[in-house]
Amino acid sequence: MKSRMNKLQAYLDHNELDAMLITSPKHVYYLTGFATDPHERFLGLLLPRGEEALMLVPALDYEAAQVASEVGSIHAHSDTDDAYELLSKLMPRDIRKLGVEKDDLSVLRFEAISAAIGAEAYVDIGFPLRELRAIKTPDEVARMKNAVRIVEEVLRSGVDQVKPGVSEIELVAELEYRMKKLGAQGPSFDTMVLSGAKSALPHGKPDSRKIAEGELLLFDLGVFADGYASDITRTFAVGEITDEMKIIYGAVLAGNLAAIEAVRAGVTFGSLDRAARESIEAAGYGPYFNHRLGHGLGMDIHEYPSIHGRNDDIVLAGMTFTVEPGIYVPLVGGVRIEDDVLVTPDGVEVLTSFPKELTVIG
Amino acid sequence: MKSRMNKLQAYLDHNELDAMLITSPKHVYYLTGFATDPHERFLGLLLPRGEEALMLVPALDYEAAQVASEVGSIHAHSDTDDAYELLSKLMPRDIRKLGVEKDDLSVLRFEAISAAIGAEAYVDIGFPLRELRAIKTPDEVARMKNAVRIVEEVLRSGVDQVKPGVSEIELVAELEYRMKKLGAQGPSFDTMVLSGAKSALPHGKPDSRKIAEGELLLFDLGVFADGYASDITRTFAVGEITDEMKIIYGAVLAGNLAAIEAVRAGVTFGSLDRAARESIEAAGYGPYFNHRLGHGLGMDIHEYPSIHGRNDDIVLAGMTFTVEPGIYVPLVGGVRIEDDVLVTPDGVEVLTSFPKELTVIG
Repeated sequence: MKSRMNKLQAYLDHNELDAMLITSPKHVYYLTGFATDPHERFLGLLLPRGEEALMLVPALDYEAAQVASEVGSIHAHSDTDDAYELLSKLMPRDIRKLGVEKDDLSVLRFEAISAAIGAEAYVDIGFPLRELRAIKTPDEVARMKNAVRIVEEVLRSGVDQVKPGVSEIELVAELEYRMKKLGAQGPSFDTMVLSGAKSALPHGKPDSRKIAEGELLLFDLGVFADGYASDITRTFAVGEITDEMKIIYGAVLAGNLAAIEAVRAGVTFGSLDRAARESIEAAGYGPYFNHRLGHGLGMDIHEYPSIHGRNDDIVLAGMTFTVEPGIYVPLVGGVRIEDDVLVTPDGVEVLTSFPKELTVIG
Repeated sequence: MKSRMNKLQAYLDHNELDAMLITSPKHVYYLTGFATDPHERFLGLLLPRGEEALMLVPALDYEAAQVASEVGSIHAHSDTDDAYELLSKLMPRDIRKLGVEKDDLSVLRFEAISAAIGAEAYVDIGFPLRELRAIKTPDEVARMKNAVRIVEEVLRSGVDQVKPGVSEIELVAELEYRMKKLGAQGPSFDTMVLSGAKSALPHGKPDSRKIAEGELLLFDLGVFADGYASDITRTFAVGEITDEMKIIYGAVLAGNLAAIEAVRAGVTFGSLDRAARESIEAAGYGPYFNHRLGHGLGMDIHEYPSIHGRNDDIVLAGMTFTVEPGIYVPLVGGVRIEDDVLVTPDGVEVLTSFPKELTVIG
């Protein structure tokens, strides 16, 4: 926590900001260890340049904030106080440039803040926060591994339930039930079970369609556990499938392996996307891989960085993201194979371990 | 849909706004019938004063928007277009005052919009939208009744699972599983099952605590179905409970019935809260009813109006809200009984029908 604040202090210095005001509960948690859902009440962590942080919390959170965080200066406001007036009093005198989370702050709240502070300029601090979060600490990696462990156990038990005649939504209900049973906070996004030709729709929705022999069956699911997300996709054959489906499967698996093989600190994100794409193009299915390779994973299910062909940013040790190539052939079906990876100082660690060879189920 | 737009046109006239720009997907759906989750892409419904509405949608939503909505002028932008530039081109010439949803618009997006439009003033239109949504149409009421029907069936089957030794989170998992099975989109908020002394914590969290004889057991749950929410609380006795618990239960039930009895068009929201509170005070538990009586219910689980003692706004026919008094005695336990009600032209219709007499289960 302390080192995260120090990095933001360096950002204040480097960008000549007088302070930053963190207002998203997620980032207050990330920087202080204090988790709360303040609903419509005001929560703010103020980081003045070169000074200790201070925090404004709703009165009913005061004790919890003191226990959970190391912030020395915590101030409570009750529902009858004007939180913004208190904020204005707590602000160091001369704030000319204030950093705020412009992507996560409503215009209504920003107007109240700027009326209280009266700074000359408000600068977006979304980028330094995203960048900071992209590099995971060992504690964060441990939480992600736990979220992966849970989702793989969920997937395993879901696969056991598959038989011709069971519907997509019945499987979704089973999977999400197992998530809760295994102690996850819940799914990290809407659980996807897509069968037959529907597996070719990257944004298809599970419905009462029944699983049938000779089809592809795609599972895409994740959980939140201890504040961190996992995300995995596996595609199965229900009974005997066509040769074309097998070829598609092989091409996606080759793409997945090629991209993972390419992951190491120092390369560009674009090169990872291209590694998968070249492999899939070689099999003749290039036009059917119509989305990016993956996305950052952590406290959000989709976070910085975005792994696509035109991203020339550099892969750094400590980053965690998904590798999820896919091929979607209309009317035939789709295959996607998604792993979660951690960039290590000397290569890559694949966090997901669910088997990837084509497996017949049902 | 048409009459909703007409009401907003009247608002534009009355407040001398040149146009309003609706950017929340929920309100675009409410006004046009077109539902989408555009993620980070731009979606906007522009309502110029005295003119036909026009809509800007991501390219991949274009066909769906044409099918679902009656908006005549729909414009698509692809990921390589500048959506704000297109917005600026589509704007009628002289926009001086533009209404926007300040509560639901990030500063980042607002800056892009205001750079593209260059209006003199941006006015918050949160209030007319909230007010419009508070009065439900027969179609909306039908959806809410369906959401209530599902949650009551879920609650019934959850109650059947209760026996000493089962844990709170196991019951939560069962309930949320039934929701999906019965066709709900999912829970409308985190399902709450609180047992024993924990039932006295209005914001307690279910955990592995096991249900035991002689305790109160509180269920608070709801579902989203077809875009609309239900919300119900019932409290049960697990085996034989103490006389004090029975007295508390009776006082809460009396408060619930008194408030529902008071609901009719023309009274103030405050009077409903007071009706429940007086009844609970008469039983000597006034200080233990430490929250508002209820909240509006509809497309959001908590929406306008807020039913509390200092709200002198007038109850109108067509409004739907919760009536949920409670008594929470530390170390003893809590009771809350929550119904969803619809204000009718000549009184009230209680949408929830789950029995309210004290019931022994387990």
